[in-house]
Amino acid sequence: MSHLHLGLLFNSPGNDPAAPQRPSDLGYYAETTRLLERARFDFVMVADVAFQDRVHPQPPRPEPITLFSALAALTSHIGLVPTLSTSFTAPFNLARQVLSLDNLSAGRAAWNVVTSSAGADNFGDTPLPPHSERYRRALEHVEVVRKLWDSWEDDAIIQQPGQRPCADPARVHPIDHRGEFYQVAGPLNAARSPQGHPVLFQAGSSEDGKAFAAHFAEAIYTAQHHIPEARRFRDDVHAQARRLGRNPAHIKILPGLSTVIGESDAAARQLNERILEGFGSDIWAALKAQLGGIELGDLDLDRPLPLERLPEVLSIEGRQSRYALFRQFAVQQRWPLRQLLELQGGSAGHGRVVGSPEQVAGHIEQWFRQGASDGFIVMPGQGADGARLFAEQVVPILQKRGLFRRDYASDTLRGHLGLPIPHSRYAAPLERAIR
Amino acid sequence: MSHLHLGLLFNSPGNDPAAPQRPSDLGYYAETTRLLERARFDFVMVADVAFQDRVHPQPPRPEPITLFSALAALTSHIGLVPTLSTSFTAPFNLARQVLSLDNLSAGRAAWNVVTSSAGADNFGDTPLPPHSERYRRALEHVEVVRKLWDSWEDDAIIQQPGQRPCADPARVHPIDHRGEFYQVAGPLNAARSPQGHPVLFQAGSSEDGKAFAAHFAEAIYTAQHHIPEARRFRDDVHAQARRLGRNPAHIKILPGLSTVIGESDAAARQLNERILEGFGSDIWAALKAQLGGIELGDLDLDRPLPLERLPEVLSIEGRQSRYALFRQFAVQQRWPLRQLLELQGGSAGHGRVVGSPEQVAGHIEQWFRQGASDGFIVMPGQGADGARLFAEQVVPILQKRGLFRRDYASDTLRGHLGLPIPHSRYAAPLERAIR
Repeated sequence: MSHLHLGLLFNSPGNDPAAPQRPSDLGYYAETTRLLERARFDFVMVADVAFQDRVHPQPPRPEPITLFSALAALTSHIGLVPTLSTSFTAPFNLARQVLSLDNLSAGRAAWNVVTSSAGADNFGDTPLPPHSERYRRALEHVEVVRKLWDSWEDDAIIQQPGQRPCADPARVHPIDHRGEFYQVAGPLNAARSPQGHPVLFQAGSSEDGKAFAAHFAEAIYTAQHHIPEARRFRDDVHAQARRLGRNPAHIKILPGLSTVIGESDAAARQLNERILEGFGSDIWAALKAQLGGIELGDLDLDRPLPLERLPEVLSIEGRQSRYALFRQFAVQQRWPLRQLLELQGGSAGHGRVVGSPEQVAGHIEQWFRQGASDGFIVMPGQGADGARLFAEQVVPILQKRGLFRRDYASDTLRGHLGLPIPHSRYAAPLERAIR
Repeated sequence: MSHLHLGLLFNSPGNDPAAPQRPSDLGYYAETTRLLERARFDFVMVADVAFQDRVHPQPPRPEPITLFSALAALTSHIGLVPTLSTSFTAPFNLARQVLSLDNLSAGRAAWNVVTSSAGADNFGDTPLPPHSERYRRALEHVEVVRKLWDSWEDDAIIQQPGQRPCADPARVHPIDHRGEFYQVAGPLNAARSPQGHPVLFQAGSSEDGKAFAAHFAEAIYTAQHHIPEARRFRDDVHAQARRLGRNPAHIKILPGLSTVIGESDAAARQLNERILEGFGSDIWAALKAQLGGIELGDLDLDRPLPLERLPEVLSIEGRQSRYALFRQFAVQQRWPLRQLLELQGGSAGHGRVVGSPEQVAGHIEQWFRQGASDGFIVMPGQGADGARLFAEQVVPILQKRGLFRRDYASDTLRGHLGLPIPHSRYAAPLERAIR
């Protein structure tokens, strides 16, 4: 049996008591990343948004490209997964920066593709297109980026000792992309990396998002709460990818997992209560900002939501899959508003496990063995402490059970995840075949 | 007398026998930067373009933001100066990445502002606007970036021990910029750095460029070949800045200086011959690409250029100031084409000093004492070797003569350059006054 995969998503600073006052203070991120590298994690990841709430500003998240470039210099094996939006970036700039990160880290970079649901007013006068057009545009954006990543073949740069390096024109290719949304000539101004392309992650589990992921995603960050649903999600993505001619084994499904770890079950539960209490009333404002379209007004926190005021999922232009989850717990479980808010605030809508290191490891093993996921993206509910407890107490149990690597068997993120190296579409077919 | 300032411009890999085969290999850049930090340099810098020649591809330059973010993690004092174009970036993204680099490096970042003369076909269907409109647009771009950098005041993030950090809404400001070219709401999604704003560098010495620089530049990278002209240039920028209400002491004029250093004058001259021979016939193609509009056809390398075929300076849409220099040497000095090409290829149009360490130090001292510059941006003609020789043999002479610092007196790039910390335009006037 192959190993499961583990990544860590850094908390947004406003949710993390351990976060540094200056959100881009390198020390905090460097220490945590080195700790996770010693625990043989596959990767670290940051979420991102390209705006700041005007009324309730939050401590800004670190900017992903700069943060991970700095971390690349301080680590040797762990993968680096920045989140970047197709809506607010030019494909040429994005392709170049992510590929440069991949080169600086000797093949450890990925791009977590998101389409963004807010922030357009920081980029001109045009509002974001509707949900489905956003995905159509995103699909073309990703395609342009992949063409640019193919524009330099392997070995396109030639260097004799003592000579200035030069480029082999036969191995550098314009892309001349002319599509519905993008016109890009190429070639890219950056050469190929040791792992071929950066790995493509995708986040967002709506129907549009799932179809989008089936086209190109190599790892999917998704919110899943129950094994049967997670298996259905995984099967569905695999089936869609197969219809597109892709090998489902090359798509790793990695649900987010919020963790609260204590010495015992009881200690963990107590800690969880304290953490959730820490999310005061300001969480309501944050939730409204997160969900975009929804407007609920002044409601009693301790009673279930009046259902007639909850919009339908497909009418939401924001984060459809996150809202669908919220709505499901509101409608089917009749959770009081406070509990719904805790789901959003404590776990950002993701699954949550609260318990001893053995219980957390057991939860992970059960999901993995039952084919509900290929691993997890850990979202520690205790800031830096949570990352340390997971690395030092949960990982050794997973290793003992033969579920997780004891050492890196590869130097690249593709290697860690068992993903193939993509060949340049512009290389001669014979050369592609023998490589 | 205040000290002179020294920066280093990394060679483009295609001009540098020491450059690594993978242009973003960190080791080469990290070693050189640490060497220069030990020599107490003010900063390192990379030039940049956002395209790749389709017919004669060159080994790509490293991408500036990723390279310098990695170098930030490996250094503690030296300034980091990425070149980024106003033509191909959204002000919001640029402001955020450069400010994030500034935070990650604890106040050592700058932005070298360029407007770009090629590459538009990697960013859509619209060609670049004419030279003067490009500068008008660039001026607004820089203004938006500065507003965004002001959008978080000092101390806008509040953190009590053990609490999640939060933001003080009274110290975070939308910018609501609505200009001729840009509409940007803000606030930025990144907080203020220890030096207030990243330092603003400007490159390009045309009349448009000079007026542009007078508005905001705090350091100017310029091509100057003779002390009287350099003094005129400096006086002119100072006068324009004074008319705009700025203090000329806060604008550092830093000409590029290509250096070839040997044990003796004769050894240096021999080495220089070898270096120039190394730039073979391909330099002609590179020159044509650099100058954009100019088309000279097949000319005899060993004869002066037919003057009637040289276009007027103002008709050039590319790099006007570089072309002006080329034209001046062609017309006034009647240099043969080969020598003109060497000026372009060996020194990228900049001044060149060839000699022993004492001679190089003497050249620098003379320019500085005569008020022709506030220091230099060194462009070593011998790749990594040239940087090492400058750091180990020229710098000690400058230190002995009291011209250059023996230790850093500051932790920020503004501190090294003697530049004031800009206060947020959105802060209360009283608060601005007492800070």
